[in-house]
Amino acid sequence: MSSSFGTLLRITTFGESHGVGIGVIIDGCPAGLPITTEEIQVALDRRRPGQSDLTTPRKEADQVEVLSGVFRDETTGTPISLLIRNKDQASHDYSHIEHAYRPSHADYTYDVKYGRRDYRGGGRSSARETAARVAAGVVAGKLLAQYGVRAQSYVSQVGAIAVPVGYEQLDLGLIDSNLVRCPHPETAERMAELIRQTRDRHDTVGGLVTGVVQGVPVGLGEPVFDKLHAELGKAMLSINAVKGFEYGSGFAGTLLFGSEHNDAFYTDENGAVRTRTNHSGGIQGGISNGQDIYFRVAFKPVATILQAQATINDQGEEISLAGRGRHDPCVLPRAVPIVDAMTNLVLADMLLRARANKV
Amino acid sequence: MSSSFGTLLRITTFGESHGVGIGVIIDGCPAGLPITTEEIQVALDRRRPGQSDLTTPRKEADQVEVLSGVFRDETTGTPISLLIRNKDQASHDYSHIEHAYRPSHADYTYDVKYGRRDYRGGGRSSARETAARVAAGVVAGKLLAQYGVRAQSYVSQVGAIAVPVGYEQLDLGLIDSNLVRCPHPETAERMAELIRQTRDRHDTVGGLVTGVVQGVPVGLGEPVFDKLHAELGKAMLSINAVKGFEYGSGFAGTLLFGSEHNDAFYTDENGAVRTRTNHSGGIQGGISNGQDIYFRVAFKPVATILQAQATINDQGEEISLAGRGRHDPCVLPRAVPIVDAMTNLVLADMLLRARANKV
Amino acid sequence: MSSSFGTLLRITTFGESHGVGIGVIIDGCPAGLPITTEEIQVALDRRRPGQSDLTTPRKEADQVEVLSGVFRDETTGTPISLLIRNKDQASHDYSHIEHAYRPSHADYTYDVKYGRRDYRGGGRSSARETAARVAAGVVAGKLLAQYGVRAQSYVSQVGAIAVPVGYEQLDLGLIDSNLVRCPHPETAERMAELIRQTRDRHDTVGGLVTGVVQGVPVGLGEPVFDKLHAELGKAMLSINAVKGFEYGSGFAGTLLFGSEHNDAFYTDENGAVRTRTNHSGGIQGGISNGQDIYFRVAFKPVATILQAQATINDQGEEISLAGRGRHDPCVLPRAVPIVDAMTNLVLADMLLRARANKV
Amino acid sequence: MSSSFGTLLRITTFGESHGVGIGVIIDGCPAGLPITTEEIQVALDRRRPGQSDLTTPRKEADQVEVLSGVFRDETTGTPISLLIRNKDQASHDYSHIEHAYRPSHADYTYDVKYGRRDYRGGGRSSARETAARVAAGVVAGKLLAQYGVRAQSYVSQVGAIAVPVGYEQLDLGLIDSNLVRCPHPETAERMAELIRQTRDRHDTVGGLVTGVVQGVPVGLGEPVFDKLHAELGKAMLSINAVKGFEYGSGFAGTLLFGSEHNDAFYTDENGAVRTRTNHSGGIQGGISNGQDIYFRVAFKPVATILQAQATINDQGEEISLAGRGRHDPCVLPRAVPIVDAMTNLVLADMLLRARANKV
Repeated sequence: MSSSFGTLLRITTFGESHGVGIGVIIDGCPAGLPITTEEIQVALDRRRPGQSDLTTPRKEADQVEVLSGVFRDETTGTPISLLIRNKDQASHDYSHIEHAYRPSHADYTYDVKYGRRDYRGGGRSSARETAARVAAGVVAGKLLAQYGVRAQSYVSQVGAIAVPVGYEQLDLGLIDSNLVRCPHPETAERMAELIRQTRDRHDTVGGLVTGVVQGVPVGLGEPVFDKLHAELGKAMLSINAVKGFEYGSGFAGTLLFGSEHNDAFYTDENGAVRTRTNHSGGIQGGISNGQDIYFRVAFKPVATILQAQATINDQGEEISLAGRGRHDPCVLPRAVPIVDAMTNLVLADMLLRARANKV
Repeated sequence: MSSSFGTLLRITTFGESHGVGIGVIIDGCPAGLPITTEEIQVALDRRRPGQSDLTTPRKEADQVEVLSGVFRDETTGTPISLLIRNKDQASHDYSHIEHAYRPSHADYTYDVKYGRRDYRGGGRSSARETAARVAAGVVAGKLLAQYGVRAQSYVSQVGAIAVPVGYEQLDLGLIDSNLVRCPHPETAERMAELIRQTRDRHDTVGGLVTGVVQGVPVGLGEPVFDKLHAELGKAMLSINAVKGFEYGSGFAGTLLFGSEHNDAFYTDENGAVRTRTNHSGGIQGGISNGQDIYFRVAFKPVATILQAQATINDQGEEISLAGRGRHDPCVLPRAVPIVDAMTNLVLADMLLRARANKV
Repeated sequence: MSSSFGTLLRITTFGESHGVGIGVIIDGCPAGLPITTEEIQVALDRRRPGQSDLTTPRKEADQVEVLSGVFRDETTGTPISLLIRNKDQASHDYSHIEHAYRPSHADYTYDVKYGRRDYRGGGRSSARETAARVAAGVVAGKLLAQYGVRAQSYVSQVGAIAVPVGYEQLDLGLIDSNLVRCPHPETAERMAELIRQTRDRHDTVGGLVTGVVQGVPVGLGEPVFDKLHAELGKAMLSINAVKGFEYGSGFAGTLLFGSEHNDAFYTDENGAVRTRTNHSGGIQGGISNGQDIYFRVAFKPVATILQAQATINDQGEEISLAGRGRHDPCVLPRAVPIVDAMTNLVLADMLLRARANKV
Repeated sequence: MSSSFGTLLRITTFGESHGVGIGVIIDGCPAGLPITTEEIQVALDRRRPGQSDLTTPRKEADQVEVLSGVFRDETTGTPISLLIRNKDQASHDYSHIEHAYRPSHADYTYDVKYGRRDYRGGGRSSARETAARVAAGVVAGKLLAQYGVRAQSYVSQVGAIAVPVGYEQLDLGLIDSNLVRCPHPETAERMAELIRQTRDRHDTVGGLVTGVVQGVPVGLGEPVFDKLHAELGKAMLSINAVKGFEYGSGFAGTLLFGSEHNDAFYTDENGAVRTRTNHSGGIQGGISNGQDIYFRVAFKPVATILQAQATINDQGEEISLAGRGRHDPCVLPRAVPIVDAMTNLVLADMLLRARANKV
């Protein structure tokens, strides 16, 4: 059951980087959501390689096909299956890594765990698997839209270059106004510059994505183990290259005293319950409290670099291995739609689960 | 299904802070593990309130009773049920919070989600629920011990006072040598001093717990969604007051370039595959690689303070609310056995799941 | 996960026949259901041994204690835990079966599967486990009652003595009017006579329980694998001693042609969609169609008889084994509340799941 | 989650009868199983329409494509995805049932449950979905073969024409020797004659499939809810048109006394534990005991007949509806590979689950 996520809105992904294709089944989606192939394609285009000079120059069209679950542009309540065929998967030569263990890749662990692996382009461990998540996330987002919930994310840090203000002070409408997907234009320019320098050095650089969810009704998230932020954390940590997750005040919150950290409740002019600060990040006791949810996701610099590195082969012999061809100097811009998708999937699942709260 | 955790080794906890008691069922535990009530009690005593002047002075004996699943001090393969009765639950007066929403507590979100709540001592949202996890974690730890796996954790930061070195430079045998559960004695003293000052100011302080797992075989963790670190992250984020999780290089890893961050493989003198650095934190592609697993968990300062705070009641009216009686200025020392327990539960579950890897 | 049942309304049972006690956690129950300990006790009293001379003379009070999840006689949305302590579990002597494999019992299979077993009174394989299900079924029934759904069952056959008419021609209000729980009084008398004769011969006899569910809304049950009748079938087959399940026309339906078997739709005088016949048993395509659901459950004669039988011990040696003390000549009357409970649990779970059908 | 089945070996099917195609993801399959597309195709060919004059003359090639999870003709441990595209799905005219509710079909219940349906050829409720199960069952069967487990099934009754002997007296090698898939040649001829007569009358006829599993190790099946026969029962009841399930002595066993029904253990000449009779059907306490598992599955006559029937439309108006074109007079011969597949899936899942029994 390693390839499924969600309880009521449940996705199962499949596919290898250089096999026939990748895809996803979305089971448990309510009937009656409007959805078109084009809407899914828009999200996939935000993730696909070769969008700009900041990402991998590898070209993949990533055309999605809807195999089931949609009739006359509406969901029917039956499983929605989406397929993205891989193009020219036979055209690459991966024989140099068939027996080599690339540093900080999953080659070694897969080989020991399963006794074999599809080594072509990383096989199942390739981040290409996340295209299936992005496609599924669009469907989840359509459900959320019915309830006025909207998840957005942006690149808030690349290497040491960070957006100097919080999300409340940004215009999130600017996220797609630049190639980095950072809604703070000056910072975006500096980030782009760092990414290009890194690319030219044949190296890679990491950073942070900040996620924001607005319009969340009170009551989403299950207490105890399936807390809303615990599910969000798992969702984010399941994305390739993610090393950390924090929400609300996060790690910095450990430096505050309780008297500073507590969020005072008040009733606003419309009679709505609100909090004066939001260190809680919109979640209390694992349950949404109606304030904005926000969180940060740490991405390491990806492991594929175009420099020679010392490593071993599957016989335990030390070898030198150099990446070939093309690489992605910074995955952050392409990670934004993946973070959006996983956020949508968690929130939509919790929205369905919350229907069982009360008699 | 909000109160269950795990796939093959699956626990379900129950109980409210001031109801009859709390407890847990552990389903899926293999037969043949040696286990005694006394071993479980030892772990519970590390978590129970009133251990020292650094934690809440509330006294709870937390005596565990084994209701099923153990015969002649061995697990039988049937569900293990553990019950901890609450003592003198009738003796406290919680009427002042029956209609009040305490800042940064779950009173408001529970009330909206369920239309009611057991307000006595926080009811189900109380951290008292974690006693059941600690008890279950002992059973999981017994399974891990059969395979030479050992999870330990310690307090690595309180407020801004941090252990100045990494876990590799510490003697983890010293964790229980002081009340803070910090194996760096000088730092532990300074932490204790900060906690006492905070207590005397009727305030609370947060911090970090660092977890370390040693002796892990290669191959634990499922690729894609149930990555080993994703499950660990969810487990930690499900603990009351946790705001963040990172493993290996974590958030700091975002500042490194790929050429600095990659862990080079080599074969050691015994023919074992190892890595020269361990930024991966013992996990690659979501699967353990045999190196030490390490991670950090951020705890906010807990919300119950003995100072008057502005808030509202369940009619939306603004009120002032002051905590009463006793409070816990810093939960970090008592959080250590909880982190241990959740780590054990994740690793043991993954160990059982890994049995299905290969024909 | 062998001891859990249900998806959204999920129960997990625990306990051995002669251990400390047995019990159940009900997780996922909506908040706001009225429930009292007394209501649960009434159902348990229908199942408990020693009710009459038709069942085992073993006396067990089966007093239930509510450990959690209920506050002021209402469910709170948190896990409901129920405990039934075993009485005088030390007083019986089961040493004669410690090393013997009773014919058609689970002694041998447990021993091989787990390498050991709690042999006292059958341990976990004892039908005593079903007391926990009966208790949980009461809670599920309270949810169904909110929607006007009512499940009832009765003994329709004992040995070869069968009720000569279908459920529609019976007054189900008579189920508890006799010791057999058969609402056809003349047949009940003949059944009682057969049971007494069987008891006096130190033998056992099987039979059928018929279940009926009325007031079911259209739309319960998930298509494909979790069809309503597939879940009912699994639920019934999970009860000790059950050998078969059929619903609607069942096995006899195989003798009809399609032109005879099809249920014609019509609209009744109130504008409700109905069918002129009900061979479908109220379920079409796995989904309730609003007509009565009915099914039959086959119970074998239970294995414990007070006659000497040839068998082997755990060394493979052939021995003769005679049951001791008291036995239950016919479990059918006591099976009725168990069938009711499992029916309630399936229907209530499906009712919650159906909330996710549509946007 | 309606379209998933299994715990560790878990399948999820998708697709509609006249959409793009149908398919399945098999998640949790161990690495290292040999498997080819051709082997899957052989099983699909046993199920496909148009095989003989006894089944629907509708022609579907049902060509399977392996999308993932297999590398160099071996499973890799990653999800196996199989796709069967529908042919000429646009060529049929189903407009006559767009607004009609066919008797004993799922048109009405789907429409109410989901507020809409893909009416073309039954959409998701079509038995065409079972082709995906058959494909998945081949993979499960490959796992079982590694352990010497073999599941086979055959048509044991059509209408009132029944095989006069038990499975032990049949040569199961003859199952595919005739079009009916009944290994008792004389009976098979009479069955074929009845099917042809029924076909010519534009009617349908039901019957029984008997399943047999040989070579099962002791210890498969989880006690309590996931008993081996409870999972088998659910699996069979989830197949379209199934109305009943019994195993071992089944319904007939209710007519025996315990002294007749109990299976005496003995040790055979090879030191193996066996039973002298097998009323238990190879399962005791929900766990396999090493004897043959056998069971019977009741199929109703399918609902599509080529005769005019009274029914209503989606406005509640009474109409007369006649089936058009081609129909399947008896699904039993084509049900055999479906029963085989579901049996394989249950056994293989239980085989993996059993790996967690003991330390």
